[in-house]
This record gives sequence, C-alpha cells and structure tokens, in this order.
Amino acid sequence: MRSIEVCLSPELIHLHDLSEKIVVVIDVLRATSCITTAIAHGVESITPFSNLEDCRAMKAKGYFIAGERNGATVEGFDFGNSPFSYMKEELVGEKIAITTTNGTTAINKSLGASDVIIGSFLNIQSVVNYLKNQEHNALLFCSGWKGRVSLEDTLCAGSIVSSLKDSFQTDGDTTIAAEALIAAANNHLVSFLQGSSHVERLKKLDIQKDVDFCLTPNQYDVVPILKAGELVDLGAA
Amino acid sequence: MRSIEVCLSPELIHLHDLSEKIVVVIDVLRATSCITTAIAHGVESITPFSNLEDCRAMKAKGYFIAGERNGATVEGFDFGNSPFSYMKEELVGEKIAITTTNGTTAINKSLGASDVIIGSFLNIQSVVNYLKNQEHNALLFCSGWKGRVSLEDTLCAGSIVSSLKDSFQTDGDTTIAAEALIAAANNHLVSFLQGSSHVERLKKLDIQKDVDFCLTPNQYDVVPILKAGELVDLGAA
Repeated sequence: MRSIEVCLSPELIHLHDLSEKIVVVIDVLRATSCITTAIAHGVESITPFSNLEDCRAMKAKGYFIAGERNGATVEGFDFGNSPFSYMKEELVGEKIAITTTNGTTAINKSLGASDVIIGSFLNIQSVVNYLKNQEHNALLFCSGWKGRVSLEDTLCAGSIVSSLKDSFQTDGDTTIAAEALIAAANNHLVSFLQGSSHVERLKKLDIQKDVDFCLTPNQYDVVPILKAGELVDLGAA
Repeated sequence: MRSIEVCLSPELIHLHDLSEKIVVVIDVLRATSCITTAIAHGVESITPFSNLEDCRAMKAKGYFIAGERNGATVEGFDFGNSPFSYMKEELVGEKIAITTTNGTTAINKSLGASDVIIGSFLNIQSVVNYLKNQEHNALLFCSGWKGRVSLEDTLCAGSIVSSLKDSFQTDGDTTIAAEALIAAANNHLVSFLQGSSHVERLKKLDIQKDVDFCLTPNQYDVVPILKAGELVDLGAA
C-alpha cells in the first residue's frame, strides 16, 4: 500500500525523503489558494520565486508580478496574496511571477520530488482524486508561517489524509495528528481556527473575506502542477 | 496574563525566544520519564550530555552513566533509557550522567531560558502546579524523535496547556493543536498512540512495560530542575 506523510513546516522538510514522492504544497492562507484560483480562472502559468527582486525582474519579461511579505502586498507589485486578485479577465492566458512569505519557499524546497502539485481547501477533492490515481507515495507539505507550524495548513493536510486512508497507509506521527485535528474541527473550520495565529494576523489586515473564501472546500476542479519551474493546469500540462 | 506556547521539535526551537521563560522539556518515551523517576527515587543529580563520549567519561568521576541511542542501551553504559532502571536502592544519593537520542539534546538547546524543568506524564500535575506558582511565561518543548514531531510529547504538552488555560493565554497554533489533540485522545492515551511511530519503534524493542508506565499520569510529585548543568529535585534545590 502506498504511504502518505505530513511535513508541518519548511524547517522540517530536510527530515523527509522527497524522491519518488508526489509533494502537495499547502499554504491555505493564502499562496496555494491564490495559485489554485489563478489557474482555475485561466492564468496560463505561475512561476514561484523565493526572492523578491528575482520576482520583480520578471515584470520586464511581460509577466504580471505578485508579491507578498508579512501578509501585505509589496510596493511596486501588480498584486499581493488575495485570491480575489486572481479572478480578473485581464489575466486569462497570461503568465504571473509570484513571491510570498511562506508558500513559494515551500514550493522551492520541494524540488527533488517526483511531482510537485498545489493543494488548498479550494481544490481539495481534485488533489485527493489525483493522488488516488497515481502510483507514488504522497507527502503533504505544510508551508506554515516563517517556519512555524500553521493550524490551517495542518487541517488541510489532515483533511486530505482522512479522504485517502482507504488507499494510503499513514506514515509518521504528524500524519496521525493532522487527521485527528481535522476530525476535532468537525467541519467547523472557521470557528476552530478562531484564535489561530495566522487568522489573528490576517484579521488585523482586514481580509476576513479572503480567509472565509480560502477555507471553503471544493470551489475549483483544478490541480496546479510544477512543470519546468512553472505551475500550470494539470489538465493542460 | 502569562502566555504558554508549545515547540514541537528541537529543529524548531530557534523560532522561539527562550529568554524570561520557563522551559519544560518533554520526552515522554523515555528520557524525561526516566529523569523524573530517578529524582523521585532519590538520585542526587542527573547531568545531561548530548555527546556519547563526554557522557562515558563521567564514569571515571564516580558517576553512574546512562546511554541510549535509537531506543537501545549503548554498550559499556550502566543502563539505558528504561524508567525501571532508575528505581534501584544503589542509586539513592548518587550522581548520574545521561545521554539519549532526543531528550538530552532538547535540554541542551534550552539554555538561555529563565529556568529549565523536566516534564512527563509521571509528574504532570507537579509541573502544572509549579508553572502556576511562577511569574514567567512558559514554553513546553517537545523533544520528538531525531527532529521529527512525536505524538506522545505533543499530547503531554497539550495536557499541560489544558490544565493551565485559566492562568495562561495560549500562544501560537501548535499550542491550540496540542490542546485539541489531548482532548481528542480523551484519556485514552494508550489506544490513541497505537500506530504512533515511537510506540511502533519501542514495540520492536519489547518494552511495552516502559511505554505503559511512561503514559501513566501522576506517579511522582517531583519537579527536576536544571541548576548549574545538573538536574536536581526542585524541592532540594
């Protein structure tokens, strides 16, 4: 039986062997929710950058540039990390370069995996279906917040584990923990997350609308996948 | 109100500020359970070493030496990491030097804290009472397994958080997660931990008796505390 494991932070990813695994990068608030939204709305590709200036330089190459640090849009960038920014008609068929505080770092730390895909509550069932139909073991990689563990990413991972336990064997204590946490949240995600550090942080930025949207399962039936450094629609890849 | 936070792994401790905090090191299976047992049974002091050879060298200075790697006793050491080894009459009033795979590393990574104490299920109520009666913020530091998160340490931390929530404000998502996990375990620790990686590992070493004992709350009313590099009984310190 294939195995599924959960890594809770980019600071712990070196303890996992990525080879021959499908890595699902999860940054619910908000990078992987944005990437999912963008691909679902017809963006051609999204290229992740860890470094702000590398990302900014893509503007000259005809990319839209998205930059977020500490929850806010970086000056001079076309947009930040709100999923609603990625639903625009003008972005259909375009390329985006993106850098965020946590999510893009996690994507770049996933190199070496068999495949890297993007997971969020917004496309959770599509991710589950994709993993079921592949032959590889799966590693759910939670982006966290500056190395710290985030509850919302852990819950998203737990929900994926829970949906896959008939086809995958859980590997490791964090996998058991994530599954127990989503069971404890019992479909009351928003109330369970009240008091979580990231939700508190985003409340201060007045983006409750983003939070509510990012916690809504199955808005989109897409799986963004990393191909030659760009995230593209699996269906089109 | 004072705050309480949980660090899930020695690989994440650099993300926490230890200054002016009481750090509770937790390594349920089995280092902090052994240290608690030893102090409760009259051992004078336990000196933690990260390095095996530094620990071995203490034999010549009249110490009993305890060495564990990968769950097993290291050759040439007086004993390993079973709490039952520390209940012997011959150890009363003696000094022990100890090195273990995870727990002693966590203790040595706690330097810089206001105080470092030892927590386990065996002395959990004593730890709770001590934290209540101090003025400092608390950081519960789970030792994990070779950097990975361990469920049993997380559950012990969650149980401490749960007992202190009237006097402390929870700080961080791992604190919320640990508390939710102990609530999910609902006093059925042993069955909840079935399938956890450490319990599986120890089963292979045939030490179910150790596991059962280490998961039993409130066997001892002692708080080992680090003073000048040695763990001693708080009551005697």
